[in-house]
Amino acid sequence: MAKRDAMLKRETPHVVIIGCGFGGLAAARALRGDEVRVTMIDRTNHHLFQPLLYQVATAALASPDIAAPVRALLSRQANASVWLATVERIDAQKRQVVAQGQRLDYDYLIVAAGMRHGYFGHDAWATVAPGLKTLGEALDIRRRILRAFEAAEIEPSLEERRAWTTFVIIGGGPTGVELAGALAEIAGRTLANEFKRFDPATTRVILVEAGPRLLPTFDEKLSAYAERELRALGIDVRTGVAVTELSSEFVQVGEERIRARTVLWAAGVRASELASDLGVAVDKAGRIWVEDDLSVPERPEVFVIGDLIAKTQDAKPLPGVAQLALQSGRHAARNVLCSVRGQPRTPFVYDDKGSMATIGRNRAVAEIGRFRFSGVFAWWLWLTVHLMGLVEFRRRLAVLFEWAWAYVSWQRSSRVILEVPVSPVDPSTSSHAQRVLRTGS
Amino acid sequence: MAKRDAMLKRETPHVVIIGCGFGGLAAARALRGDEVRVTMIDRTNHHLFQPLLYQVATAALASPDIAAPVRALLSRQANASVWLATVERIDAQKRQVVAQGQRLDYDYLIVAAGMRHGYFGHDAWATVAPGLKTLGEALDIRRRILRAFEAAEIEPSLEERRAWTTFVIIGGGPTGVELAGALAEIAGRTLANEFKRFDPATTRVILVEAGPRLLPTFDEKLSAYAERELRALGIDVRTGVAVTELSSEFVQVGEERIRARTVLWAAGVRASELASDLGVAVDKAGRIWVEDDLSVPERPEVFVIGDLIAKTQDAKPLPGVAQLALQSGRHAARNVLCSVRGQPRTPFVYDDKGSMATIGRNRAVAEIGRFRFSGVFAWWLWLTVHLMGLVEFRRRLAVLFEWAWAYVSWQRSSRVILEVPVSPVDPSTSSHAQRVLRTGS
Repeated sequence: MAKRDAMLKRETPHVVIIGCGFGGLAAARALRGDEVRVTMIDRTNHHLFQPLLYQVATAALASPDIAAPVRALLSRQANASVWLATVERIDAQKRQVVAQGQRLDYDYLIVAAGMRHGYFGHDAWATVAPGLKTLGEALDIRRRILRAFEAAEIEPSLEERRAWTTFVIIGGGPTGVELAGALAEIAGRTLANEFKRFDPATTRVILVEAGPRLLPTFDEKLSAYAERELRALGIDVRTGVAVTELSSEFVQVGEERIRARTVLWAAGVRASELASDLGVAVDKAGRIWVEDDLSVPERPEVFVIGDLIAKTQDAKPLPGVAQLALQSGRHAARNVLCSVRGQPRTPFVYDDKGSMATIGRNRAVAEIGRFRFSGVFAWWLWLTVHLMGLVEFRRRLAVLFEWAWAYVSWQRSSRVILEVPVSPVDPSTSSHAQRVLRTGS
Repeated sequence: MAKRDAMLKRETPHVVIIGCGFGGLAAARALRGDEVRVTMIDRTNHHLFQPLLYQVATAALASPDIAAPVRALLSRQANASVWLATVERIDAQKRQVVAQGQRLDYDYLIVAAGMRHGYFGHDAWATVAPGLKTLGEALDIRRRILRAFEAAEIEPSLEERRAWTTFVIIGGGPTGVELAGALAEIAGRTLANEFKRFDPATTRVILVEAGPRLLPTFDEKLSAYAERELRALGIDVRTGVAVTELSSEFVQVGEERIRARTVLWAAGVRASELASDLGVAVDKAGRIWVEDDLSVPERPEVFVIGDLIAKTQDAKPLPGVAQLALQSGRHAARNVLCSVRGQPRTPFVYDDKGSMATIGRNRAVAEIGRFRFSGVFAWWLWLTVHLMGLVEFRRRLAVLFEWAWAYVSWQRSSRVILEVPVSPVDPSTSSHAQRVLRTGS
C-alpha cells in the first residue's frame, strides 16, 4: 500500500511540524504527496478555531463546535503521522525534537507553536486573571463567569454580591472587546429574571486598556465606534490607564481599587518557550526574527510560522492573526518542497486581507483594504467569514444552528460548568515514558 | 410583584429539594404555584440527562447536548430559587440543610441526591476505573479512551501498545453494554485508517460481568441477544467471573491477569453520603427504607425519592431508573401539598413503563409490559424515547442532528480531549463562606 511504502522509505525527507493551529495545519496540508514524510506534533488532540474561542468562554458554543480532531483532519493524507505529545525541547544541533521522552529526527522542522499569555513580569496574575488561548482556558473562564453569578445568588452580604457581579477585562484588543460585549449580553438578557437576590442587569463590566484607545490596530474611527457601542451596552470603558495590582479580591486600575471577583486577561502575549531553544534573536515578546524565506538565521532547515514570527513589512510588524498563520504556513511548506527539489526558495510576502472584531449582536467593525465598515453589515461579514473559516462542513452547520437559535432566543446553549477530574493516566507519566526519559534512549 | 411577595411571605412553607436530577426537577415542577416556596440545591449548575451520558463519554455528543442549566429550567417558576451549592449536612433535628457554610431552614425536605459509584470496599479502584455518573466523569472517560489510542500511536513497544489498546469494562448492566458497544464502533469504524503504528481494529474490548448473564434485570432471551450481538461486534464477553484486583497496569479477571491501561467501572452503586445524615434504616447499598408516602420513618417532613429509595413492590425491589425518579418526585411533591392543605397523603405506587438498553447501531433491547423487542425496532424505540426525554426543544433538535450525522458518517463529533484547569475561585473557598463556616452563623 502507498501509505506503508511512504512510511518505510527512510530516505524520504522527514518534516516535523510543531503545533496544529492555522499555520501548522496549512503547512501539513501543503505538504500532501510523496516527496516528504510529515509528523504533526500537538499537545492537544484538536485543531482549534481560536477566533471563536471567546464564544465557548461565554457559553454560546460547545467545545466540539470549534475543535476538530487533528487525526481526523489528516487521516486522508497518507504521508502524515500525528503525535499527541508535548514537545519538551528542540535539539537544533542534532536536528531532533524531544517529545514524550522520545527523540524524533527531522530533516526539516516547522515551528508553529504560537503564543501564550504574557503578564508583563507579573506571573502570579495568571491564576487570578486567566487568558484565552486554549479550550481548557475557555472552559475555565466560562466556569468563572457562570459561577460568579451563582455565588452572588447565595451570598447574603450586599457588598460581597457586588464583588461577584463585577467583571474586569484587561486588554482592549479584539478579544477584550468581544468578551466585554458577550458579558454585557449575558447579564442584560440571557440571565434576566433568573435570580432572586439581585438583578443581573446591575452587573458591572469594566474594560481596561492601557493604551489611548480600544482596538489599537484598527482605524481610529472604528475604535471610537467600538467604544461608543460598548458604552451603549452599559460597559465601563477605561482607556489610558493601567492595571498595577491584581488579586482575587480587587483590581487596582490607576488610582482606583475596584472590588471584583472575576478578572479576565486579554492583554499581553509571549512566545512559546520552545522559541528560545533555537538560540536565535527574538523580539521583546520572544518572537523569532526570521529570514525572508521564513527560516531561522543560520538554520535553513528550521522554519518559523504564524504569530511566532517577528518580521516587519512596509515598516510595520506583521500582525499575529489567522491570515498570517495560514499564509506563512503554506509558504514555509512550499519552501521545504523547493529545497527537496533542489529549487531556490522564495521570500514570504504577507497579503493583508483585512481584520475584523465583533462587539455584540448587530455590531462589529471591519477593515478590508482601504474600506472601513461598522454596524450590521460588518457583523454579517464577521459571521460569514468566521463560519466559512471553520474546518469541516458539519461544524459549520452546527455553529450556524447555534447562532440562529441564539439570535432568536437570546439564550446561550452551553451554560454548563464543567469540572473534569485531573487524569492520572497521562501517557507522559506511564512507566514506559518515564523509563525512556531516565535512560535518555 | 408576585415573585417578590412569595419571597417575603415568611409563613409560606419552605420546601428544600436536594438534587436536580429527574426526581428533583419533577418535584420542583410539581410544586409550581403559590402554596409553597421552593429552593433547589444542586452541586452542579445543570440538569443532566444521564441515560445519554455514555454518549458524551464516547465522543458522540457534546456536554451541553445533555445538560440544561437548572436556573433556566426553573426561571419561569416564580416560587423557586436555585442554589449552586454542595450540601454538607442535613440537620434533621433542627430541620436545616447546611450548604456552603449557610444554614437553610426547611419545612419540608425532598432528598433526591442519588447514587454514586460503589467499589465494594475497594475505594482505591476509583482512580483507576472511573464510573459514569457526572459530566466530569464522562469527560474523564472520554479523555482516557481517546488518549489510550494516541498513546498507542507514539508507543514504540508492541507489548505496551497492546496494553493501551485493551479496554476492560466492569459491569454488564445497561451502562456497561452501551459503553462496550460504543467502544467497538469507535475502534472498528470511527478511527479506521487513522493510525500508522497499529490498526485500531485490533483493539480488545473486554466486558466483565460477575453475575451469570448480561443485563440481569431484563428477560433472559434479551440477555442472550445482547451477548450474541456484542460478540458479533468483536467484544470479549465474560460472565460469571469477578474482578479481584485492579491497577493502572492490569486487571485480574478470575484466573487471568489482563494487561490493560483503560478500565471503566459500570458495576456497583452506593447511596449519597447525605442518606446517612437522616439516621434511619438503609439497605446494604445505603438506600433509605421509606414509608408508603415516600417519607422517612418518624420524619414525615422529609421525603426521599429516586434511586435513593429502598422499597419493594410485588416482592421486587424498585429499580433505580429515570421513571422511578420522575414518578416518585411528582408523588412526593403531591404529598407535600397534601400536608400543606391539611389533606391525607397517598401511598406511592410505581408504574413500570418498561426498560431498554442499546447495544450499538440498529441493535437494542426493550421490555414493555409483557412485550419483548430486540434489533432495529427496539433501537428506533430507544432513540425516540431518549430524544423525547430531553428537556428543551433546542437540545432535542441538536441531538437529533448529531445522531443523524453520525449515522450517515460513522463519525463522532466530539472527539475533543478537554483539560480544564482546577479553578481557584470556587465560591465555597471565598473568604466570606469561610468566615460563616467558622462562626457557624
